[in-house]
Amino acid sequence: MTKSGPYDGGMEWLEASTENCPVQRTLDVVGEKWTLLILRDAVNGVRRFDDFRRHIGLSEAVLSDRLRKLVAAGILKTVPYREPGSRSRNEYRLTRKGWDLWPVLMALSQWGQLHALGPEGPLLDLRHADCDAPVRVVVECCADHAALAPGDVTVRLGSGAHARS
Amino acid sequence: MTKSGPYDGGMEWLEASTENCPVQRTLDVVGEKWTLLILRDAVNGVRRFDDFRRHIGLSEAVLSDRLRKLVAAGILKTVPYREPGSRSRNEYRLTRKGWDLWPVLMALSQWGQLHALGPEGPLLDLRHADCDAPVRVVVECCADHAALAPGDVTVRLGSGAHARS
Repeated sequence: MTKSGPYDGGMEWLEASTENCPVQRTLDVVGEKWTLLILRDAVNGVRRFDDFRRHIGLSEAVLSDRLRKLVAAGILKTVPYREPGSRSRNEYRLTRKGWDLWPVLMALSQWGQLHALGPEGPLLDLRHADCDAPVRVVVECCADHAALAPGDVTVRLGSGAHARS
Repeated sequence: MTKSGPYDGGMEWLEASTENCPVQRTLDVVGEKWTLLILRDAVNGVRRFDDFRRHIGLSEAVLSDRLRKLVAAGILKTVPYREPGSRSRNEYRLTRKGWDLWPVLMALSQWGQLHALGPEGPLLDLRHADCDAPVRVVVECCADHAALAPGDVTVRLGSGAHARS
């Protein structure tokens, strides 16, 4: 990324407080491995407590805690269902806010496919439903939609930057 | 995402082992909050031990451990430097494999800007160096570069999928 000397106002990255860093704020909510694996399963259609527990290999206590936090954060919502002969239970569905984490999961998956996979290949094969071509995650310019490399991006401190105390 | 009933070969997502899930493999390497915050700082030009430590607010022990793991994983590399009058020390630079995590950090940042920021605004303002338009992370089709929503993507089990034991 391109940084032309000091940022606006003369403050440097190292002098800026990270209290309102959006990466940090996101990790405060979902920056825990089990939480991200629950979201991976949710994106792939898993909705029920026992399915999450068995598929991810989580204890009931940890899964309950992480689901509760994701519901409290508005990333999952509970929807009641009832199997014949059973009591009503809740299943967990992604909200719009939850689906907005899809690019995070796709970016994690892309790096894993590139750098951390064995010869057996990946678990999933994701394709554009319209044309069956593979999909990928890119950083692009909002104006002309060109895929960008880190060197194409200028970084300045933003409106919320303030000095570290 | 679109799943047309059972995946290839009749195996469902819930029946597939996640042992070779690329999301999981990536999180095995970088799926820890401090690790991702170290990478955030590295992407923003931080290279020296004391700068990471002060800016992120990490103990020396935790920082040493995380840097060592990132070097062992080939995500950071050490490059010696020497300040006048001091002994030679190492600084930490992202490798190509490390820069490939840039879309992960950008996706985390994008979600945080959308859903977790206060009124003061974000810490950084990232723009296309060529045209000064904001940048964004999208999932796109490799063939026609259209930005995709989850509903536009077909998910099948991949070549490496095998049943859970």
